Amino acid sequence: MEERLEKQLSFALEIDKEKSILRQTHLSGHGRRENDAEHAWHMAIMAYLLREYANESVDITKVMIMCLIHDIVEIDAGDTYAYDEKMIETQKQREDSAKERIFSLLPEDQCKELTALFDEFEACETAEAKFAHAMDNLQPIMLNNSNNGGDWKEHGVSASKVYKRNETTKLGSDTLYSVIESIIQSNIQKGNLKDQ
Amino acid sequence: MEERLEKQLSFALEIDKEKSILRQTHLSGHGRRENDAEHAWHMAIMAYLLREYANESVDITKVMIMCLIHDIVEIDAGDTYAYDEKMIETQKQREDSAKERIFSLLPEDQCKELTALFDEFEACETAEAKFAHAMDNLQPIMLNNSNNGGDWKEHGVSASKVYKRNETTKLGSDTLYSVIESIIQSNIQKGNLKDQ
Repeated sequence: MEERLEKQLSFALEIDKEKSILRQTHLSGHGRRENDAEHAWHMAIMAYLLREYANESVDITKVMIMCLIHDIVEIDAGDTYAYDEKMIETQKQREDSAKERIFSLLPEDQCKELTALFDEFEACETAEAKFAHAMDNLQPIMLNNSNNGGDWKEHGVSASKVYKRNETTKLGSDTLYSVIESIIQSNIQKGNLKDQ
Repeated sequence: MEERLEKQLSFALEIDKEKSILRQTHLSGHGRRENDAEHAWHMAIMAYLLREYANESVDITKVMIMCLIHDIVEIDAGDTYAYDEKMIETQKQREDSAKERIFSLLPEDQCKELTALFDEFEACETAEAKFAHAMDNLQPIMLNNSNNGGDWKEHGVSASKVYKRNETTKLGSDTLYSVIESIIQSNIQKGNLKDQ
């Protein structure tokens, strides 16, 4: 087999491990915890179907691949819960090492391409990155809302933190930010989110 | 909320159930059984990274969304193992009913679009559908090969059936068909696949 194809298949096999990285979000129907691969799959389909609500016109292929790969570094770095401040402090360092090891399995051009897509997502400055962030926020909030805010209750999360986190949603989509805003409000009323 | 967005979000929540549809394939490292959402995520990334090996030039966005949604009908119809002839007999009928119920949650234009994409995948006639089928075949074979053919051994699968199933891989990519051919041959030699 050619070295290029061998590298691509070695990366393809490696990322299988993302299916074992558990998030804090639970599946709808009060199900088990979701893993990163499932979350990314869900985000990519939602991005495709909801792209009409992006604030700026987006290259949807780029958004989708960004959604699909944005958590691959967590194979080494682990999942960092959006509302865990201690873990967030060390997140960048852990994810940078992981990014280097995992994307380096690919041929050089694809390593560069995926690293750049990952960095673009993280920087959250382009239209595509902002819309992908909106999906990264909306998808777990949708599941959590369907479970009566169970994940927020479990971690004692406050509304102000959810608002803060969703500043990137607003950059990506005003319409979807409104959806999230009304979910936050209804969960404050139900006592699922602390109103601080 | 507008009816259109409400329908889109209702579909987005419904497809969460795909994460609970288990396949016969096991994760690498002799892991647990894989589910449909994980499989689709894996296929979409592989399609993006391996698109240079498609026999015909493909619209990669279309291939990716096809990969992501091709198993959604299994929420109602269940997974049909590629080598289970009895289940395959009733597969079309089960999946047609599911397709109608699930895609109808979407606004009419998107219901039509996703139904058409699903049908195009099933028909396996366009360049995109053929390449998506190559991914649908390669992804589980890659995992199964990494597990020393455990899934084939468990079900007593014969090499001729794997060859038959991979006729669609050959339509999508001669290069990736060669990869699969060498995996089949090595698994026959190891006694993991019956040589009939």
